[in-house]
Amino acid sequence: MSRRPRPETPRLRPRVAPTDLTRIDFTEFTPEPIPFLGQAAYIQLEFFESLAKAVATAPDLASKEGLSAAAGVALRKHHELIAELRRLDAEPADVMAPFAPAADRFRQVTSGADWFELLLGIHITSGMLDDYFIRLAEGLPHELRARVRAILGESRSAEVIERELERAIAADPTLDDRLALWARSLVGDTLLIARSAVRAAGSGEHGPDVEPVFTELIAAHTRRMDALGLTA
Amino acid sequence: MSRRPRPETPRLRPRVAPTDLTRIDFTEFTPEPIPFLGQAAYIQLEFFESLAKAVATAPDLASKEGLSAAAGVALRKHHELIAELRRLDAEPADVMAPFAPAADRFRQVTSGADWFELLLGIHITSGMLDDYFIRLAEGLPHELRARVRAILGESRSAEVIERELERAIAADPTLDDRLALWARSLVGDTLLIARSAVRAAGSGEHGPDVEPVFTELIAAHTRRMDALGLTA
Repeated sequence: MSRRPRPETPRLRPRVAPTDLTRIDFTEFTPEPIPFLGQAAYIQLEFFESLAKAVATAPDLASKEGLSAAAGVALRKHHELIAELRRLDAEPADVMAPFAPAADRFRQVTSGADWFELLLGIHITSGMLDDYFIRLAEGLPHELRARVRAILGESRSAEVIERELERAIAADPTLDDRLALWARSLVGDTLLIARSAVRAAGSGEHGPDVEPVFTELIAAHTRRMDALGLTA
Repeated sequence: MSRRPRPETPRLRPRVAPTDLTRIDFTEFTPEPIPFLGQAAYIQLEFFESLAKAVATAPDLASKEGLSAAAGVALRKHHELIAELRRLDAEPADVMAPFAPAADRFRQVTSGADWFELLLGIHITSGMLDDYFIRLAEGLPHELRARVRAILGESRSAEVIERELERAIAADPTLDDRLALWARSLVGDTLLIARSAVRAAGSGEHGPDVEPVFTELIAAHTRRMDALGLTA
């Protein structure tokens, strides 16, 4: 992990930190495994498609090569989640179908105006949503939870993208302001998709209070931006 | 394998069949491992990019799902060939660079006017070139040869694409003529890339006589077209 350590983390923190509170909330929330896996799988397919576009439009072969590995990670996550659906005797295409329109729109609005915005879009949205689905997974049946966390927890792809963005930002001093602005617009769209995930996973109107988790996701987002030297 | 058995193969064939002759030629031809791997790896990256485009533009989720698996196979072939380059202490991006312009052009001219032509383009060109690189690999050092043949021999991706094409052709009676015409135009471009591969792999002007191998590739192409009910 090349991310900076979180500088503001106190060494002795209060017994009930916000993180603990939200963890309790989410463990009590038990998502329906099939729609949960369907949405998570489809979103990984969207990340794959965005990464494949980044591979196809990469400015040089070294970048293409690194991003192709990142695309492979997203594709593997997708296929491993699909395998979990099949294990539950669900037909993946049917389960994913209801999530496709919103996720397709999400990919379009987060794909940016050029290669750098595309990369940052993938980095920010996949960072937030992988974290979020890992948190949602806390309420899944024990063994499935462990497997889903292992699938989504693979962060090699984020490291590759971060390295590409760092290099690009170092090479072009005008890029950081534009990317900081772009990142701010990504957060809202991502939180909307995250909220729809709680609904889809079966909580209906009486789902858990996701606000504390959103606060956490935004804190992680800020750290991700810090690591790139961008103002969140 | 869903391909038809070759109907014309005689049960008792002459001692020196054309296939044996060409096998001898290619065993005597010893490609330079690094450029061989570089070109093979880059071509798999092109297949991956085409398959990723096919995933992104698939008409339905079931097709998208099947093709995403095929894209994963091409990407794995690419990464496994890259791993062989690293094993030889070569820098993959540097080794692939000289092959990129011709391979990029090849992908563009073989990508077709719509999703069906794109799929057939991938099927025909990857079928011919995987066969061809497997044949070229016969002259590689023993252990590398075995690994390269194992990497390129994975045909799951071809089966997925074949299934999609069969379904499309069955659904639209006007598609077969158009696709047959398109396939004929693909063969010439593919043989040109194949010829450049022999040159690149170090044979210079005095490489092996590739004509018999081309004859073999075209025979395999005809069987591939037959399997789809298309006139080669």
